[in-house]
Amino acid sequence: MLSKATFKLISSLELKKYRKESGLFVAEGGKCVCDLLECGLKAERVLATEEWLHTHEFKYNTDVTVVSNDELKKASFLQTPQGILGVFRQPSRMIDLEAPEKRLCIALDGVQDPGNLGTIVRIADWFGIEEIFCSESCADIYNPKTVQATMGALGRVKMFYTNLPSFLEQTKEKAPIYGTFLDGENVYDKKLLNRGIIVMGNEGKGISDECALHVCERLFIPNYPQGRSTSESLNVSVATAIICSEFRRRNN
Amino acid sequence: MLSKATFKLISSLELKKYRKESGLFVAEGGKCVCDLLECGLKAERVLATEEWLHTHEFKYNTDVTVVSNDELKKASFLQTPQGILGVFRQPSRMIDLEAPEKRLCIALDGVQDPGNLGTIVRIADWFGIEEIFCSESCADIYNPKTVQATMGALGRVKMFYTNLPSFLEQTKEKAPIYGTFLDGENVYDKKLLNRGIIVMGNEGKGISDECALHVCERLFIPNYPQGRSTSESLNVSVATAIICSEFRRRNN
Repeated sequence: MLSKATFKLISSLELKKYRKESGLFVAEGGKCVCDLLECGLKAERVLATEEWLHTHEFKYNTDVTVVSNDELKKASFLQTPQGILGVFRQPSRMIDLEAPEKRLCIALDGVQDPGNLGTIVRIADWFGIEEIFCSESCADIYNPKTVQATMGALGRVKMFYTNLPSFLEQTKEKAPIYGTFLDGENVYDKKLLNRGIIVMGNEGKGISDECALHVCERLFIPNYPQGRSTSESLNVSVATAIICSEFRRRNN
Repeated sequence: MLSKATFKLISSLELKKYRKESGLFVAEGGKCVCDLLECGLKAERVLATEEWLHTHEFKYNTDVTVVSNDELKKASFLQTPQGILGVFRQPSRMIDLEAPEKRLCIALDGVQDPGNLGTIVRIADWFGIEEIFCSESCADIYNPKTVQATMGALGRVKMFYTNLPSFLEQTKEKAPIYGTFLDGENVYDKKLLNRGIIVMGNEGKGISDECALHVCERLFIPNYPQGRSTSESLNVSVATAIICSEFRRRNN
């Protein structure tokens, strides 16, 4: 049986303030929880229903509290709880300032939708991008909705929150900085290296002026047929996927 | 002032049953409402706040009921109403069975998340894909969440619900049918024509066996570096975007 204190702890982790204070976050569902454990993240608590444990293999050296469906429902942030919930410690990682010189990285400038942020982490993981540098104005990576949207990729991609304009300024002498703009050049025709930073902007406003200043390679995903009246833009996670795919296609 | 009957009508349109009975749907926000009017969709009602009308140009030949912020808040399906809401008639369009012979189309096999469906409509619009054929098991295109995610693209892309396996069976003699599978061939290396159908599958289960039977070109988006342990898959809207981008890159 779960104590009131545990329910209270978990429910507090819906808010950034308490996630920051405690250094904890919640992940739900077998894929998310097991992927994070697989990547070596430390779980403070794992709750699972008997049914889930009977129908899944759980091979990690972590205590599991068996809970009833009702208890899990009460603890879960999901409309349909997924049988297992983990409370994890946020990993603390050193920022590698030289990463963009050696490999391809992503920088996010004010991506505010938790779902978009999580989807971008999953895309980065698919395309072997190990670091994402976020402006302070981005959604919190440990928001339960974001964690859910990463589908476990969060354990494999390193996330850093930083003063993005100043980070880009420091980096631009040493590595190319790419960004997408409505007046950029056709990404299919541009020379794309296998290192540097791809900057993606806010859902409504795109890349801020402060960051745009440091972008040396302005890209654009052409619509089809070119020049046709169409949607004004692509969703930021969709655009990130297309750009990453094009970098990896060229350099595979 | 809005009548009780109008509030009741709008609120009923959150449910598929009433959307089907009435043939109506709701779109919100200036971009969505104006794009649909621009495309010639018929609005039965348009509600807008005085503030919205003062700060935006509204050039369409349609009656607008001025409502208070409170009234709009009561009518709206959004947490933060966008100043304008339209009740539209669902367009009835003839299915063009020969479209896949002439141009690139998308088929969706059980895409169930309303947000994914809407995002895919927006992607189709960007890449000049005029028709999307949906299995009966897909989310309803007129779900308010889906309409919102299309960002107005819904007016430009024709949506058809049909028995997908039998439609693919009829079509496969005349046009190539592409689909993504985890054991498919590298999409960057495959020959891709500028016509035919791209089949995208359900979020969890992918393309059903009944539809897979008719796919003649099995594609795969390679991860990077190839063979590395990574996310198990990409989100369906993200995968659709990458595939469409690759078709259009080759044939632009």
